Amino acid sequence: MFASWHNSRGKQGNNQKSIYGIDKMEEACGVFGVYAPGQDLFRVTNFALYALQHRGQESAGIALSDGQNIHLKKGQGLVAEVFPRLQGGPKGVDANGALGHVYYSARGKARPENAQPLLVRYRQGNLAVAYNGNVINAGELREKLEKEGSIFQTMTDSELLAHLIARSGHSKLESALQSVLPALHGAYSFLFLAEDRLIGLRDPYAMRPLSLGRWRGHYVLASETCAFDTIGAEIIRDVRPGEMVVISKEGLQSIQVLPSSRTALCVFEFIYFARPDSDIHGKNVHLVRKRLGRLLAREHPVQADLVTGVPDSSLAAATGFAEELGLPYEMGLIKNRYIGRTFIQPDQEIRDIGVQLKLNPIQQVVQGKKVVVVDDSIVRGTTSKKLVNMFVQAGAKEVHLRIGSPPIICPCCYGIDTPERSELIGAQRQVEEIRQKIGATSLQYLSRLGMLKAVGLPPDSLCMACFSGEYPL
Amino acid sequence: MFASWHNSRGKQGNNQKSIYGIDKMEEACGVFGVYAPGQDLFRVTNFALYALQHRGQESAGIALSDGQNIHLKKGQGLVAEVFPRLQGGPKGVDANGALGHVYYSARGKARPENAQPLLVRYRQGNLAVAYNGNVINAGELREKLEKEGSIFQTMTDSELLAHLIARSGHSKLESALQSVLPALHGAYSFLFLAEDRLIGLRDPYAMRPLSLGRWRGHYVLASETCAFDTIGAEIIRDVRPGEMVVISKEGLQSIQVLPSSRTALCVFEFIYFARPDSDIHGKNVHLVRKRLGRLLAREHPVQADLVTGVPDSSLAAATGFAEELGLPYEMGLIKNRYIGRTFIQPDQEIRDIGVQLKLNPIQQVVQGKKVVVVDDSIVRGTTSKKLVNMFVQAGAKEVHLRIGSPPIICPCCYGIDTPERSELIGAQRQVEEIRQKIGATSLQYLSRLGMLKAVGLPPDSLCMACFSGEYPL
Amino acid sequence: MFASWHNSRGKQGNNQKSIYGIDKMEEACGVFGVYAPGQDLFRVTNFALYALQHRGQESAGIALSDGQNIHLKKGQGLVAEVFPRLQGGPKGVDANGALGHVYYSARGKARPENAQPLLVRYRQGNLAVAYNGNVINAGELREKLEKEGSIFQTMTDSELLAHLIARSGHSKLESALQSVLPALHGAYSFLFLAEDRLIGLRDPYAMRPLSLGRWRGHYVLASETCAFDTIGAEIIRDVRPGEMVVISKEGLQSIQVLPSSRTALCVFEFIYFARPDSDIHGKNVHLVRKRLGRLLAREHPVQADLVTGVPDSSLAAATGFAEELGLPYEMGLIKNRYIGRTFIQPDQEIRDIGVQLKLNPIQQVVQGKKVVVVDDSIVRGTTSKKLVNMFVQAGAKEVHLRIGSPPIICPCCYGIDTPERSELIGAQRQVEEIRQKIGATSLQYLSRLGMLKAVGLPPDSLCMACFSGEYPL
Amino acid sequence: MFASWHNSRGKQGNNQKSIYGIDKMEEACGVFGVYAPGQDLFRVTNFALYALQHRGQESAGIALSDGQNIHLKKGQGLVAEVFPRLQGGPKGVDANGALGHVYYSARGKARPENAQPLLVRYRQGNLAVAYNGNVINAGELREKLEKEGSIFQTMTDSELLAHLIARSGHSKLESALQSVLPALHGAYSFLFLAEDRLIGLRDPYAMRPLSLGRWRGHYVLASETCAFDTIGAEIIRDVRPGEMVVISKEGLQSIQVLPSSRTALCVFEFIYFARPDSDIHGKNVHLVRKRLGRLLAREHPVQADLVTGVPDSSLAAATGFAEELGLPYEMGLIKNRYIGRTFIQPDQEIRDIGVQLKLNPIQQVVQGKKVVVVDDSIVRGTTSKKLVNMFVQAGAKEVHLRIGSPPIICPCCYGIDTPERSELIGAQRQVEEIRQKIGATSLQYLSRLGMLKAVGLPPDSLCMACFSGEYPL
Repeated sequence: MFASWHNSRGKQGNNQKSIYGIDKMEEACGVFGVYAPGQDLFRVTNFALYALQHRGQESAGIALSDGQNIHLKKGQGLVAEVFPRLQGGPKGVDANGALGHVYYSARGKARPENAQPLLVRYRQGNLAVAYNGNVINAGELREKLEKEGSIFQTMTDSELLAHLIARSGHSKLESALQSVLPALHGAYSFLFLAEDRLIGLRDPYAMRPLSLGRWRGHYVLASETCAFDTIGAEIIRDVRPGEMVVISKEGLQSIQVLPSSRTALCVFEFIYFARPDSDIHGKNVHLVRKRLGRLLAREHPVQADLVTGVPDSSLAAATGFAEELGLPYEMGLIKNRYIGRTFIQPDQEIRDIGVQLKLNPIQQVVQGKKVVVVDDSIVRGTTSKKLVNMFVQAGAKEVHLRIGSPPIICPCCYGIDTPERSELIGAQRQVEEIRQKIGATSLQYLSRLGMLKAVGLPPDSLCMACFSGEYPL
Repeated sequence: MFASWHNSRGKQGNNQKSIYGIDKMEEACGVFGVYAPGQDLFRVTNFALYALQHRGQESAGIALSDGQNIHLKKGQGLVAEVFPRLQGGPKGVDANGALGHVYYSARGKARPENAQPLLVRYRQGNLAVAYNGNVINAGELREKLEKEGSIFQTMTDSELLAHLIARSGHSKLESALQSVLPALHGAYSFLFLAEDRLIGLRDPYAMRPLSLGRWRGHYVLASETCAFDTIGAEIIRDVRPGEMVVISKEGLQSIQVLPSSRTALCVFEFIYFARPDSDIHGKNVHLVRKRLGRLLAREHPVQADLVTGVPDSSLAAATGFAEELGLPYEMGLIKNRYIGRTFIQPDQEIRDIGVQLKLNPIQQVVQGKKVVVVDDSIVRGTTSKKLVNMFVQAGAKEVHLRIGSPPIICPCCYGIDTPERSELIGAQRQVEEIRQKIGATSLQYLSRLGMLKAVGLPPDSLCMACFSGEYPL
Repeated sequence: MFASWHNSRGKQGNNQKSIYGIDKMEEACGVFGVYAPGQDLFRVTNFALYALQHRGQESAGIALSDGQNIHLKKGQGLVAEVFPRLQGGPKGVDANGALGHVYYSARGKARPENAQPLLVRYRQGNLAVAYNGNVINAGELREKLEKEGSIFQTMTDSELLAHLIARSGHSKLESALQSVLPALHGAYSFLFLAEDRLIGLRDPYAMRPLSLGRWRGHYVLASETCAFDTIGAEIIRDVRPGEMVVISKEGLQSIQVLPSSRTALCVFEFIYFARPDSDIHGKNVHLVRKRLGRLLAREHPVQADLVTGVPDSSLAAATGFAEELGLPYEMGLIKNRYIGRTFIQPDQEIRDIGVQLKLNPIQQVVQGKKVVVVDDSIVRGTTSKKLVNMFVQAGAKEVHLRIGSPPIICPCCYGIDTPERSELIGAQRQVEEIRQKIGATSLQYLSRLGMLKAVGLPPDSLCMACFSGEYPL
Repeated sequence: MFASWHNSRGKQGNNQKSIYGIDKMEEACGVFGVYAPGQDLFRVTNFALYALQHRGQESAGIALSDGQNIHLKKGQGLVAEVFPRLQGGPKGVDANGALGHVYYSARGKARPENAQPLLVRYRQGNLAVAYNGNVINAGELREKLEKEGSIFQTMTDSELLAHLIARSGHSKLESALQSVLPALHGAYSFLFLAEDRLIGLRDPYAMRPLSLGRWRGHYVLASETCAFDTIGAEIIRDVRPGEMVVISKEGLQSIQVLPSSRTALCVFEFIYFARPDSDIHGKNVHLVRKRLGRLLAREHPVQADLVTGVPDSSLAAATGFAEELGLPYEMGLIKNRYIGRTFIQPDQEIRDIGVQLKLNPIQQVVQGKKVVVVDDSIVRGTTSKKLVNMFVQAGAKEVHLRIGSPPIICPCCYGIDTPERSELIGAQRQVEEIRQKIGATSLQYLSRLGMLKAVGLPPDSLCMACFSGEYPL
């Protein structure tokens, strides 16, 4: 439903995301682009968005360029709700390029206008823009633009970029981008669809993922390679830090639009955000997660009867943990697949029952057992406490909580939805205090070094600011 | 439903409006504004929009200012669909001012983004804008702004105004408007809602209606006075040509923001657009319509058994016609009230059956009779032909078509949805030719002079460009 | 929306119908049937239901027989909501017969299951049933059936009839009906669609309308002849009291299935229920209404400046009244066409503002005038009071209320939704008392004799029980 | 959406279930009942239905008894769609008992009317009925009832039972059931809610699950014990074969309403239908599945690099298989959680891409590896073929398919949605032929003996007719 009350600071009312008390870092958005004249671009974009749906469930949109016009459809809800038919783009449109987006709304940005792609008309014609990430000096840049007489209708960085491009004075989109990008600070992957080209670019630290693939002889871009698998494309490579790729009938042109000294890919893509079947910078997410578990076991072994993981993101780490110690791996916790985004009047009782509606330990598996529970991270600690309690209620003799990443001590300033520092239990308390609060028999986190090792990318190629406070920028 | 395919030239597909072959000029939009701290402004705006719903059924929206923020809800559909509850604005919002809008989409503007009010953030804060009308040099102004680096996300003049205001450099909204309005040419009534004030203004010819009223000791503005009746407000007066009224806690301030040499109110407000219970420039619409009928009868009397009108807009004229000639007035044509806006795949058979689904002559009334059928206007002539045929089928012996306005010979360039000149039957053919084509026994139009006389406003105070080709600007 | 809470006594919560305080008798349902192999029966039935929509807006349904199966679609809402496409019946179905229904829910019957047609499977195959009316001994018959082991899933008489037919032991539907109909008392028009035939029948007093028509060489049945006009059918005649018409590939067979001593057609069809363009028993509804006004004027003339009617049902009577006295007829009261069925949480303020949202007197027409307001009937008197007050507020000097029917003194026991006797103002008070309560300058009702005369059917051919207490059965 | 075309044989059009080519046996329905005066029974039933949602996603319904009336709400869609608010039963209803149902429509039964609970009125008052299973002689019984004059409005066995109860002549529901149940053959668990009691019963072979629990001092019944965990109830025991439990203010009464010679619980509950965290007859489903994998490994070991399972139902078996052979267990196959039930116009390309949209092997995990893929069953073999091919495409060197159950050789006649025998690949071909068709390196099924051993219930306590052709009845 399009219509809901919102204001310039975002939507009214309670934040729906937390009603089940599922306490996670949250990712922002997935993008997909394709330039392939003569193909059914609505369908392939639709399919790709299905594969990227885990990155954002608030809204979905597809823009199609036919060489002269850009056609757009977007709306609130899942891909399947906005595009109820797998086929069926705009009638009579023979598209050469397409841009798709799934939107996750960070706090305060849940305005219907924020749905993407954003379609604007400017001096050079039509332009559809979509992105994943956060321009951290967007406030400043918006203020500057406002002072120069710009108006803003959304809170998206897509609108910011569109303004900057339009004001750059350049008639060529590539030149415009080259001139305006240096002013941007932040973590972002942008896609632009003009009448005759598709452009993708990544910030100079490559903090947000963006991969390049080949599909039926043409080029595609996606936040994650799982989208390539789904549509039958092959991975070529990741877009490089500061690289702009321009895809048109002339083929692919790569421009190093911004100088890059290092890569600082958000490590949380590996820990939690990305789909296990995606590869990022050559590393498969599932295998990284398994290694996280293995290294966690090496760092913090425990005598126990079985190892179990919190579905779905921690199952791989749990198997790694179990293998490493030679302990049985068990699916001790079942997740209800039908808990949706529908509830609109949460009250305290529902908040309390939330985790219970969503997760259920198997009593016959855990009863009387010393159980290792592997989770990927702890943010506020609220879910962990309920989780440990559920295992205790189910009869577990001991509950050893093992976390496949270090304590989160700093909020993310690059667009990942983290609470204030004061709410981050890892920033406020020592591990032993946390253990007590949570009620676990023991609690251990993976070290930063262990995490780095598990990912397997060169040192200094990841952003781990939320664990270290060392922000790359 | 928010999501539909559209492009920079508007929505895809067939124009739904014409599927019943009802051949009318079409109006664009209704606005309502109120500044009344401490009152339930959501409810009163909601009620007022019900009263203005006839001016636009494509989308509806309400903006509420609480002194610091502006809260907005808008969506596709009728007021009752966008705001299904009569009470129930945003929670916890104590509004001091409100702006409401119902949208009629002229051809090619059916993009969901065009729903209004438009809410923007600019240098001076938040601003909600809504209007009725058409800035005729909008294309030029947009082009100029684009050249200066502006981007456009909608096709509305609200966005155009917001850009101009933001770029004016003035920190006061009133001053900004004073500086930018001279550049605008066209027929428009604009409303602006800022955090602490409501501004209404009318073009220097006062082509589009806008009335000022008093409600519970505060000021209200509305496209038509029927909205005042519905909410229990009193009419103060019409906003004057070129006048800007600024309503805030300081009360009402009137500024002659643009010089005005004459009034040129769109005469079609009287003929067709406005609700009969509205007064415009002191003239009641129903009474004007009745006089149109009377004068039409005087100009083109006819020997007949009865007079009937095409519901609803021509009933008043029909009674006037009948009274003048002492003929019986009969409701010879019944309108189906349940034909809605729902059908999405019109085909030829439905187009043909359209008028028949919507209108039905009463056989027992018209059979064997010489019937005068009064209609308010003829645009393309397609409906008239079907109408005359329906009366013939129902057994009418003679069908004398009398039109309560002159032949339409020019398209409107001020925002009224008229077809091309080549489709205007009045521009292409003589009255006798039209009569033959339509199949009526006789056909007569009211003269321009008669129309003027019926309206009763001073000569030269109306825009009659569609009848005369003499555009006021 | 299908899902709403209901129980064996009907739906939960407030009755939506009265939220605007519009105080009327309410009709129950419209039916349409056609047997015409080879035609597009979905479309024609859909069109016919549009024409009958005024008889019921709660649900709509269409059943199609293809000779072997009966296909059904029904749902809550308007015809246009349940069947959003004008074409588009079930795929691959080549229907020979069709049955359509629009449902009005009398109090206590608003269960989604009550939507019709009802489709049952019984010994002889499939059967779709729909009706308009009320079997007054349904309670007894249901109880008897329950005692014999029947179960009931709806509160409709369609289900009752289906049970009786199934239990009759007859293998032929006609015979079954002949055997069970004598047990029924009440006012009803039933339609049955079997695999190979369409049957229509009317109670022995013909209390509910049912007309027979010819369409493209085939037969059609409808509650009102306006449906025939809409689809292009011709009226043959009304179905006779106690007559059963069986339509199949053998053509039409008429069976006098129940003896009939007299006709007792519900006079409210003429006063309020039927569309003005329908003919019932040869009398056009509009012309009857006009005569009601004429005779009312003769019985209760008044010196006044103008006559106005309450739209839409009383406009014809108002013109008759005005003509008879040579007074000007004016459209002094405007009806908002967009007040729908959407509001779900009415409160007192809305109830109070209800009439005001829906109706608005034209001040310039009535100010300083002696006004005659013609209304068709008074039920509780609540609307009349608000109406008179609105005219007073608008400046009318005198408000003479004239009612085009006698005082309602008894509730209907034949299925028309009337309040208890204690709520009927006509049953509780003298005319002068009512006048005082309502606040009118004068108040007069048409006499029963005058009403009879206006209808023009033979004496003793109408049911006027609500005016006289003399129930035909 | 309630309204869709259907006929007496079910809904029109393509069967949505198979569009992704996911080739599974399909279960029918979940039930929940509670008798607990003074508790919030709407909420607890709503929560329980969430836990049972995997058993049916076509419609959901809740009936509440307040001692005098039964209130019902049901509709098409998921629990969250039919009951969008977690709180919010019918206003003012203080329920003593509740009945909830989620519906899976077997082929040909997708009529909106089939949504349950069914609410009927009969001689003894109101009765809500819901069930899981299939009365195999329903056709005969319906025919007999039709011959005796009954009508049927649905295709449910709930309606059949309601008829039988109503016709039994018994005034006590328990007695009625006792008298009619012997005539029923089939696999069923029924729940009945009368004004003052809740009754649950299971067929004499206990083929369909039904468990009894305690909640806040009261009794609850549910298809699976995972519902008890979700609402915080404790398992008491399973309802026994042929047992009827009557729950009222007198407490719980157990009646052996039908003699039972053996139990024949459908073994597919363990293999595929039930949630892993449910216990059936004391056996935890997850642990049974793990043992199925262990025994499969013992019977058909294989030299391989890793073991992977098809999510979600085969993951447990895969871990068991891996553990038994000491092979690494890997999540080699990722399931898209957002593939829903929305698509309405499947075409061949979507069918082909279906499995690919839903499942994706992780290339980096399987590339160059000898992979064991464990699946729970093979029905037609279509999915298996695509699955094997996906692994081959992803670079697996060998793909050893291991099935955690024997070949399916016979269709189920007890209500499980199985294709015709001719479509059952296990019925048509030898294992080696199947292997060739599927393209696997090797293919092995678990033996019936192994399956029995894994379940761990006494021999002859399971129905394995689909594997053996030996039907218990």
